[in-house]
Amino acid sequence: MSIVVVGSVAFDAIETPFGQTEKIVGGSATYFSVASSFFTPVQLVAVVGEDFGSEEMKIFDKGNIDTAGLQRVDGKTFFWSGAYGYDLNIAETRDTQLNVFADFKPNLPDQYRDAGVVFLANIDPELQLEVLEQVRHPRLVAMDTMNYWITSKRDALIEVMSKSDLVFINEGEARQLTNEANLVVASQRVLDLGPKIVVIKRGEYGVLMVSEKKIFAAPAYPLENVFDPTGAGDSFAGGFLGFLASCRDFDDRELRRATIYGSVVASFVVEAFGLGRVLEITREEIDARFAEFKILTHFESLHA
Amino acid sequence: MSIVVVGSVAFDAIETPFGQTEKIVGGSATYFSVASSFFTPVQLVAVVGEDFGSEEMKIFDKGNIDTAGLQRVDGKTFFWSGAYGYDLNIAETRDTQLNVFADFKPNLPDQYRDAGVVFLANIDPELQLEVLEQVRHPRLVAMDTMNYWITSKRDALIEVMSKSDLVFINEGEARQLTNEANLVVASQRVLDLGPKIVVIKRGEYGVLMVSEKKIFAAPAYPLENVFDPTGAGDSFAGGFLGFLASCRDFDDRELRRATIYGSVVASFVVEAFGLGRVLEITREEIDARFAEFKILTHFESLHA
Repeated sequence: MSIVVVGSVAFDAIETPFGQTEKIVGGSATYFSVASSFFTPVQLVAVVGEDFGSEEMKIFDKGNIDTAGLQRVDGKTFFWSGAYGYDLNIAETRDTQLNVFADFKPNLPDQYRDAGVVFLANIDPELQLEVLEQVRHPRLVAMDTMNYWITSKRDALIEVMSKSDLVFINEGEARQLTNEANLVVASQRVLDLGPKIVVIKRGEYGVLMVSEKKIFAAPAYPLENVFDPTGAGDSFAGGFLGFLASCRDFDDRELRRATIYGSVVASFVVEAFGLGRVLEITREEIDARFAEFKILTHFESLHA
Repeated sequence: MSIVVVGSVAFDAIETPFGQTEKIVGGSATYFSVASSFFTPVQLVAVVGEDFGSEEMKIFDKGNIDTAGLQRVDGKTFFWSGAYGYDLNIAETRDTQLNVFADFKPNLPDQYRDAGVVFLANIDPELQLEVLEQVRHPRLVAMDTMNYWITSKRDALIEVMSKSDLVFINEGEARQLTNEANLVVASQRVLDLGPKIVVIKRGEYGVLMVSEKKIFAAPAYPLENVFDPTGAGDSFAGGFLGFLASCRDFDDRELRRATIYGSVVASFVVEAFGLGRVLEITREEIDARFAEFKILTHFESLHA
């Protein structure tokens, strides 16, 4: 089953305690597409400027990423510059240039409109709503957001949540959105807004997936080398939804596996700047780390 | 197999966003003893003052806690006053009165000296070393510490670690001790000091147990009501070592179960002020939550 993703394709300049980059390709839709394309065909909706050339386009040359919905317009591509300290959970934004993204209107090619899974990456919730008007009968709608939209476009954001099946959100944003410090209670408040599942992202601490009656908790994969956390959240969503879209059933069993696949793909992404590591790996390496994840978290029942 | 614990028995006055207490019984050795006594006999070494009366002593009336090593001396019992904000991971100390604890010299009754498991709770590492000189041939020595000793008595602390089999330490303290931001690397540096196992405590985020070749990662049990985190770390150690001491083998399988038992007991402790909740529960309730922990964290392998 194919996935439509709508979000940003961008240039990033990143500094971490371990080094820094010139402009490299980034953006929420980019990380998501690459991550999910290991599992299922992806249809990309985003916008780039004239400075995004054939060299940059090679990132999408994996065979599984359809770029018919990637608009190319006059002007420069969205640019973000940020830095991380030793606490890699916190990014300090140094510069944001919306450029061609300022006038972005998502427009889905007709062949995208029957996609089974829709991922609304972190963009203006009003644009997220425009996307939902263009898809016909998705089996699953998932979304992400950020603190900026929680304060500036709260009503539109809540409308998107009410129309989504699954919400990805950071723990800090979940607390901010619901004004509730306890994360279990905050998750229930998000569910009250409409979605059936909320996936709370906790960075290096892992993930909580909460539905009406069940919680699944997974740690992050412990890494000796965390180099650049940029794109971890979008890659997590990409691995999660990519795997899920490849399943017949979207039941609790597959949702839990999807959580682990998301964590696995994100764990590769943070091992190098930008997409450096994730463009090297194979599905076999992903499956091998999934198996390691099982060993990492396994314990026996009382009477085993 | 019995456990000897050496640490503090104290009065605490605690304020959290959910309420505040007058003086209640606390202290590292108290939380540890109560937690581990669900699983195995505990032998307590600590000191109290004249203000610690028969009413307070009832906390140890569980049948499984031997208080022959609890010294009662002239003066007042150790007192700690602290407050937590909505981030329950951070305690602000308002007052510390060492009182009778200032002159504490651990002195193990003869019947304690053959204990199979020794737990050196968070006290001056020089006192921890004195305890180790008094035990004969423990099967397992475990220790805890805090930031204060890392800076003020680093050499003695490292000597204790070199003589311990298992180190419990907070993630922040592991980073402080090793001057290494990455937690997997920091854990290896702690292992380099001598212990075979390091258990990194991450508060509401769970635990990493690291040995030479293996890592076990467990989330914390998600709670809707976290009332007072005081004693969570010592109760975790108590559940962990109490369960382990009840096992024939101290192998990876039982160490993983011990981690979960520790997490379970700690999850009860934080549901009320002080020991309020943990004094109510039964081993059956602990086992039931252990089983819930299995459901919480379970996912199926790829080809299951």
